[in-house]
Amino acid sequence: MREAVHAAVIELLVSGETEAAIPRIAERAGVNPTSIYRRWGTAANLILDAAVSRLRATTPVPDTGSLRGDVEAWATGVERSLNAPDTQVLLPALVAAQGTDASPAEHLLVRLADLEQMLTVAAERGESTPPVEDLLDHVLAPLYLRALLRIPIEPGFGARLAARVLRECPADPDRGVVRGD
Amino acid sequence: MREAVHAAVIELLVSGETEAAIPRIAERAGVNPTSIYRRWGTAANLILDAAVSRLRATTPVPDTGSLRGDVEAWATGVERSLNAPDTQVLLPALVAAQGTDASPAEHLLVRLADLEQMLTVAAERGESTPPVEDLLDHVLAPLYLRALLRIPIEPGFGARLAARVLRECPADPDRGVVRGD
Repeated sequence: MREAVHAAVIELLVSGETEAAIPRIAERAGVNPTSIYRRWGTAANLILDAAVSRLRATTPVPDTGSLRGDVEAWATGVERSLNAPDTQVLLPALVAAQGTDASPAEHLLVRLADLEQMLTVAAERGESTPPVEDLLDHVLAPLYLRALLRIPIEPGFGARLAARVLRECPADPDRGVVRGD
Repeated sequence: MREAVHAAVIELLVSGETEAAIPRIAERAGVNPTSIYRRWGTAANLILDAAVSRLRATTPVPDTGSLRGDVEAWATGVERSLNAPDTQVLLPALVAAQGTDASPAEHLLVRLADLEQMLTVAAERGESTPPVEDLLDHVLAPLYLRALLRIPIEPGFGARLAARVLRECPADPDRGVVRGD
């Protein structure tokens, strides 16, 4: 049922119904509106849940053997996901949604969890790792600003940002931490 | 008239009327709806114009005598503007607005013009300057991502980002250009 409802809300948003209401979503998904109200409460919460779920599903966490390889591959996946037509609708909807028990920042927590996983694996290999905030600020933020303001992202931009923060601009030794000791 | 209409649309958005319609805005501003239709065409165009204008008005371009000083002071102004209650409403509205002859990216063009001005003045002093994209990606983007996802920005964050991109992480000599020669 969750997938059917997510698909319905995303289809409605993509088709231009920015004010998708729960009865309309229920009709499209072929479920009872009461079930949607019970599970999500408001359309804003449902939009946030659908957006977080759809945006996550398109960006698996890679395992290339090095932190730089992982973050470059992951940033390429994020870039591809941000360029997808449904994302270009979902992301502004996510930002505009004022959920009662969810917030747009929850989407970012999912991305941060991916990054933390890559950093933990790298630290277990003995690599020194930058703070996760560096990857948030200097890889994710430039990609998201473009997507949110509907500026096209050229292929390879995400990987270049990843390489820059991990190579050209290494973390201050006092700030970088080796994890997993 | 422009200022009265801008003030009206911002007040309506801040008070929670995310679907502010032109007749309602006209009533609040005390002007004829026809004048608004003639000048802006759609509510989305008006919201974009009001947002760009309000967000710009709060961030003057400084002249401290050095590029780093200028960008640090300017980033502090941007940070303050993003933390203001009306900005926290206007920015998501700007992102969600689908204007016909305006786009959310226009807001960024205003910011980029500010940065270009600082870079030109610095180059005229003989300072070497990074590409404007570096300041977009590594100063503006982290600030905007937080504002858009409603993550509080701690005071001093903007200045630290400016210092990092201009000092800790200098531009590649092949990429940085001295302007104004």
